[in-house]
Amino acid sequence: MSRDGGTVLAALVDALERLPGIGARTARRLAEHLLRVPESEALGLADALRAARARLRPCSRCAAPAETDPCARCADPARRDDVLLVVETLRDRDAVEATGRYDGRYFVLAGRLSPLEGRDVGDLGLDALRTRVADGLVREVVVATNPDLEGDGAARAIARSLVDLGVAVTRLARGVPTGGQIEHQNAAAITDALRGRRPLDDADA
Amino acid sequence: MSRDGGTVLAALVDALERLPGIGARTARRLAEHLLRVPESEALGLADALRAARARLRPCSRCAAPAETDPCARCADPARRDDVLLVVETLRDRDAVEATGRYDGRYFVLAGRLSPLEGRDVGDLGLDALRTRVADGLVREVVVATNPDLEGDGAARAIARSLVDLGVAVTRLARGVPTGGQIEHQNAAAITDALRGRRPLDDADA
Repeated sequence: MSRDGGTVLAALVDALERLPGIGARTARRLAEHLLRVPESEALGLADALRAARARLRPCSRCAAPAETDPCARCADPARRDDVLLVVETLRDRDAVEATGRYDGRYFVLAGRLSPLEGRDVGDLGLDALRTRVADGLVREVVVATNPDLEGDGAARAIARSLVDLGVAVTRLARGVPTGGQIEHQNAAAITDALRGRRPLDDADA
Repeated sequence: MSRDGGTVLAALVDALERLPGIGARTARRLAEHLLRVPESEALGLADALRAARARLRPCSRCAAPAETDPCARCADPARRDDVLLVVETLRDRDAVEATGRYDGRYFVLAGRLSPLEGRDVGDLGLDALRTRVADGLVREVVVATNPDLEGDGAARAIARSLVDLGVAVTRLARGVPTGGQIEHQNAAAITDALRGRRPLDDADA
């Protein structure tokens, strides 16, 4: 007999432990929670997961999971077609979208580079990005990968993969974040901000 | 249209966010993960959850979820019936079991006291504990709730609920943990250790 008193509980703990960032202890806590809540709540999660997998498919334009193809954003005639912003995750896309200041298209890579987890450049979905960019409408690709080592690596790989397509490849500016305090920024952020300094009469100063 | 581009993704994020300790950001990260892994892995979680809810029922003796009733531990003829150790969660039970030094029975409460979440003494399952203790075989109830405010409250409530049953009610000893360093213990732990100090010729010294 397993410490979980049976195979079904052990199987649930195992399945939860496979989730990113969920360790053995948390998996057991979540499993116990899921056994204690009303059945409708526990099965609601199972049903939501099944429904999501059954009904969401990668949009053939931006690769984000969507119920329609193309997805609503890619089909939206109000967005401009000449700028394509490349993100690593849906959360990144949503963070950009939340600014209300971007009205171009998106492309969602298959995730972040993660050498530790063995996810390298070949796993990012760059072939699909290349196909998307080659549609003839895109003039600028804005790379919105994280400002860290892995994001830098992904950005270089993206630029390389698009080099012969005749599009401009730009990257989000780096510096000190609005609302942050300079004394609390690390040296890399301040160095980036120095390097990218702009005249004070710039539009957004 | 929701920021998730559809109702099924939003429903999955919502269901994940209902899990304890899972915030909005983590829920979105988990949802995205579950959409990216092979379908068999994602549906494996849904199936494991369904199977656990379908096949696990509270043991009528110890209240732990089990595939049989009584559960294997309660049915084990090698364990003694006169000591009953009360825990708040399965993880606590497993931690005690992992010592290999306890051969009595268990009772698993319906969770920890949590005033913040509105879970009070009435939600602990003390009626079921009382029924269990009243079987005539139990002579000692060992309260193994956490050594903190909530655990103290639960311990007092347990003792109160059993006061007329003529059983001894004990609680796990408090002190400095083996392997810990005295200089790093807080005042409460050292105070407990002082209060509970024992002669050096004790069996375990």
